[in-house]
Amino acid sequence: MIRKYRIGTPIETESVVREVEITPGIPAELAWDEPNKTFSMPLSEDAIVYGLGETVRGINKRGWTYISNCADDPIHLESKNSLYAAHNFFAVADHESVKGFYVDTPVKTEFDIGYTRMDMLYIRMDEPDVNLYVIDPEITGTPSKAAEADTPIRRVVRQFRYLIGRSYLPPRWAFGYGQSRWGYLSEDDINAVIEGYEKSDIPLDSVYMDIDYMERYKDFTLNDETFPDFPAFVKSVRDKNIHLVPIIDAGVKIEDGYDVYEEGIKGDYFCKKEDGNPLVAAVWPGKVHFPDFLKPETRSWFGAKYDFLIRQGIDGFWNDMNEPAIFYTEDGLKQTFEKIKTYEGRNLDIKSFFAFTGMVSGISNNPEDYRSFYHAYHGETIRHDRVHNLYGFNMTRAAGEAMEKISPEKRLLLFSRSSYIGMHRYSGVWTGDNQSWWSHILLNIQQMPGLNMCGFLYSGADTGGFGANCTEDILLRWLGVSLYTPLFRNHAALGTRDQELYRFPHADWMRGLIRLRYRLIPYIYSEFMKAALNDDLYIQPLSFVYPEDERALHVEDQLLVGESLMVAPVYVQNAAGRMVYLPEEMKMLRFKGDVLTEETILPAGDHYIPVALKEVVMFLRKGHALPLTEAAKTTKELDYEHLKYVCFDASADSYELYMDDGESRIPE
Amino acid sequence: MIRKYRIGTPIETESVVREVEITPGIPAELAWDEPNKTFSMPLSEDAIVYGLGETVRGINKRGWTYISNCADDPIHLESKNSLYAAHNFFAVADHESVKGFYVDTPVKTEFDIGYTRMDMLYIRMDEPDVNLYVIDPEITGTPSKAAEADTPIRRVVRQFRYLIGRSYLPPRWAFGYGQSRWGYLSEDDINAVIEGYEKSDIPLDSVYMDIDYMERYKDFTLNDETFPDFPAFVKSVRDKNIHLVPIIDAGVKIEDGYDVYEEGIKGDYFCKKEDGNPLVAAVWPGKVHFPDFLKPETRSWFGAKYDFLIRQGIDGFWNDMNEPAIFYTEDGLKQTFEKIKTYEGRNLDIKSFFAFTGMVSGISNNPEDYRSFYHAYHGETIRHDRVHNLYGFNMTRAAGEAMEKISPEKRLLLFSRSSYIGMHRYSGVWTGDNQSWWSHILLNIQQMPGLNMCGFLYSGADTGGFGANCTEDILLRWLGVSLYTPLFRNHAALGTRDQELYRFPHADWMRGLIRLRYRLIPYIYSEFMKAALNDDLYIQPLSFVYPEDERALHVEDQLLVGESLMVAPVYVQNAAGRMVYLPEEMKMLRFKGDVLTEETILPAGDHYIPVALKEVVMFLRKGHALPLTEAAKTTKELDYEHLKYVCFDASADSYELYMDDGESRIPE
Repeated sequence: MIRKYRIGTPIETESVVREVEITPGIPAELAWDEPNKTFSMPLSEDAIVYGLGETVRGINKRGWTYISNCADDPIHLESKNSLYAAHNFFAVADHESVKGFYVDTPVKTEFDIGYTRMDMLYIRMDEPDVNLYVIDPEITGTPSKAAEADTPIRRVVRQFRYLIGRSYLPPRWAFGYGQSRWGYLSEDDINAVIEGYEKSDIPLDSVYMDIDYMERYKDFTLNDETFPDFPAFVKSVRDKNIHLVPIIDAGVKIEDGYDVYEEGIKGDYFCKKEDGNPLVAAVWPGKVHFPDFLKPETRSWFGAKYDFLIRQGIDGFWNDMNEPAIFYTEDGLKQTFEKIKTYEGRNLDIKSFFAFTGMVSGISNNPEDYRSFYHAYHGETIRHDRVHNLYGFNMTRAAGEAMEKISPEKRLLLFSRSSYIGMHRYSGVWTGDNQSWWSHILLNIQQMPGLNMCGFLYSGADTGGFGANCTEDILLRWLGVSLYTPLFRNHAALGTRDQELYRFPHADWMRGLIRLRYRLIPYIYSEFMKAALNDDLYIQPLSFVYPEDERALHVEDQLLVGESLMVAPVYVQNAAGRMVYLPEEMKMLRFKGDVLTEETILPAGDHYIPVALKEVVMFLRKGHALPLTEAAKTTKELDYEHLKYVCFDASADSYELYMDDGESRIPE
Repeated sequence: MIRKYRIGTPIETESVVREVEITPGIPAELAWDEPNKTFSMPLSEDAIVYGLGETVRGINKRGWTYISNCADDPIHLESKNSLYAAHNFFAVADHESVKGFYVDTPVKTEFDIGYTRMDMLYIRMDEPDVNLYVIDPEITGTPSKAAEADTPIRRVVRQFRYLIGRSYLPPRWAFGYGQSRWGYLSEDDINAVIEGYEKSDIPLDSVYMDIDYMERYKDFTLNDETFPDFPAFVKSVRDKNIHLVPIIDAGVKIEDGYDVYEEGIKGDYFCKKEDGNPLVAAVWPGKVHFPDFLKPETRSWFGAKYDFLIRQGIDGFWNDMNEPAIFYTEDGLKQTFEKIKTYEGRNLDIKSFFAFTGMVSGISNNPEDYRSFYHAYHGETIRHDRVHNLYGFNMTRAAGEAMEKISPEKRLLLFSRSSYIGMHRYSGVWTGDNQSWWSHILLNIQQMPGLNMCGFLYSGADTGGFGANCTEDILLRWLGVSLYTPLFRNHAALGTRDQELYRFPHADWMRGLIRLRYRLIPYIYSEFMKAALNDDLYIQPLSFVYPEDERALHVEDQLLVGESLMVAPVYVQNAAGRMVYLPEEMKMLRFKGDVLTEETILPAGDHYIPVALKEVVMFLRKGHALPLTEAAKTTKELDYEHLKYVCFDASADSYELYMDDGESRIPE
């Protein structure tokens, strides 16, 4: 059952698609502290808090403050408060009850979950205008696909998912393995990558094109020198059943003669300063304007631009820099140089020295800049900071809405860096600019359940890590995690160590792991689609299915993937294996590369499982079956008809395989 | 057996105290690549690499590159290469052999341990002039306290420890709990802390005085306004058996009339630029000169200054900023402002914008500055970067040598941030400016064995984390680790959340854990002193004692503490317990606070052990006994005579208790 409360006059986010009658007042679950603009609720000692989507820390969110304030920050430390997304849905579960809370406001919102006091949860907002949804496990009032027989936490989550509408459905090829790197400059570079994979016989479905494919970082342009005949190039790649996936950034370069810029000015599509002039900010292309994606007219205009690439054969995109990231604004930089003059020639003491260096490092993504421009939204002029968390959502919505028109039959790939709930209907997300840190493998594992809860089923991390230097062992172990995530992309930053799989001494081990992914694709695709079509979870914590198991409640490094599998990846450097907790009897499947070499039934309880770098171990749930196909070079070439089933106390027939052509749009 | 090789004409570090005859040539274990100035050796698949002291990552150092280049860097990420120390000793152990390697050079040295290739170890140096020691487990040639019956890895380490001389012995009170914070401004602030501990009945042996006690950050001064009668204040604190421990920084403020500065100029004690003028750098006091601690005359002069505080009742110090940290140099800052002018007024593109911000953020600890000044060392003028790693060592050596004269009877507390092997004879180390991150609890656990191997027995981390905001749960779990480290200090940075134990809602739980520390002090002190006096390890990995146990080889989050205890701290947020691996039957001791509530004998193997936030669980080895006293307010008030023993298949008599008065110097 979903109750809706309206406090003040909230800004509409368009994240919710179902009508819910408003209950007057404040929900009984929360206390409201008017002077401090804070909601609060006590947390029992055994309460676990799930959700908040893309955030730092564990599956259980207790013990930190998370701030919904979409941020371009590539250093995802456990002490950070904000990442790229604002996913304001969480659920509190203890032995007494389970409740879901959706705090629907685009305004900066603080979730203090046992940070100030271990036993209290506080929600603080810059403006206490909010649509607040409280969800009980009982399925009454709101029709939903959630089943009464389900666990209480799953019933809460599935009702929430019904509230926010069906998740984005990517084409099946988007479940293949993709290679990316910031620094592929040309057709030649990309062809070399494809050749590297071909020669090493490692499957590959996509190559990503980062900012360098454009002409001086201008959206919807191509560098003619490095991509002299783009349609022919796309075709040559597509003939190999490989897809090119270009990046699109939020900022539009200010340049006379550049059609997108000129149309934007003419159409009045850009965000403006108080004086009515468009904001001048700088990102990759240098000075840019930001399209006001909150205006439907801007969305229609900008969305239609994707056709520039689609008609050249492109069928997938990633939207980036859409928090929006701001390297500097024209006004801000000018002011900074003025201020620098006041430091020059002075004998800088420690206070003034750090004020000086802090001022310079604070030029980028400066809160003041986010308060310096405006949107036209629902007939009002709204300062950016009040709708900041909706910006990336609406950029990607522009793309998603346009694609339905440009490609009404075929699904296209689309994912975004910044997001708000609601965007999950239009696209997936990747978890942004992570690092080649072992701790980020664990973060990858721990972010997946929260993202699934918030509807972002199509998601994954930059495998191997974007920033910092990768080692062969971290990459091998990370493949053993991304193996299960719908989005499976290897991506690395300019200036970091080469990270393409074929470059490593043990490329054969990597080949085995990628081939295993392809063997699993019928299962992964089937489970993903069933979850998306039924408001269900593709990846979930053990506790969602085994809520009575006290041990399972605290398992933070194992996941349920679809209905048949429990996974327990190795994410510690130099580990020869790991402890795995089985909440019930399961069948351990050991794969050496893509070859299933061992099936062992293990009793419930703790087991030390050796896992070599070239191996993957997964656990088949009792009463379930796992379909496997044979590996192939691409998803297109996979045999989806002749599947083999590994079963544990079940027959192949018991598995409900979702199958379709992998690309047709599916009406709701 | 220790073999010594001399390659080129190495700069003497004075880290080794025993004569070893030089074997000509290159050790057979290493290949020498002259053009690339690189030593290399293959690593077998099962080889584990131990050592390197204070570094990032696990106990097994494989899979990363560590660079000995003492760095003032407070962000101890797994992708960093250098921390504050240069500890160039490591051991490679596989099923075939164990070898120790000491790469004795003050020059920047890279240890690429399975980073470039998983199966290779490379050692690269800026200058290939080095004294190289290779240590086999066989005890021949070199007299050592290592016993033939010991495990091969322990024999290697103990021979190395013999080579570098006896570790520093602190007074017993230095094993008590200490509270620190950057931001205690006055007597009143410190008295409030002491009162907070008194009122909460939490034991306390020391309060640390960070930079604010000085008059404008000038070494060997006191702020007369905030500390109007320092000797009386020290006495009032000492009357409570509490010790004040002030910080001493490396840089000497440039200020006419400041005696230390004027004496330094007159005595020619400062580091000079190429033009013969002293280098002008800036740290806390603003502009400073750096004493040339590599000159014995400077050490004598600077060391004697500690008497300014000792004669006012101080008996402990921490040396800081001695990498040396450089906020900026006068010349560097001037150049930067000149360069900034070239950016002003220009239309900054992305390249020039990041060049500009990078230049400003790179002012501090700039490699060019470290190449801009010189030392007088062994009769030569040597550019700083060639002896950089010896600077903190020699600052602390200055203090240690002076203290032997100033206080010939009584041991004083001394520890340092920067270090090189050799400094372990004069002082301990703390692991520098860590963060309130859960990952840094694990780092704390994993750094301890390496530090012990390199002779830094007296060591510990900033409990609760220095930077970032602490939560109550991280502090409780961290207490459960620092409980065992000789140095047990809670320290936090200016601007972070208050971290004194008595400020938290569950101060009673914290009291219990601190009282447990005090109950353990007879054991901790006894084990520490035996280790120090016998070139042994106070803390070591499980694999050092159970090298035949394949599982124990890979345990990275449990430690042996002294002869009787194995510990397995909880370091994961929201964990209700953890898996513990027992290499043999052990007796689990559960303490609720300081009360022993459970003694359970557990068989060898894996066990899930619930551990509440207020609890600590430790494991008593079979055939061993653990002495416990009753808790008291300070170490001074502890009863060292009437100990109770918890035993497992042993009697109290079987435990060799080291006892002394806790302060007298002990001749070698």
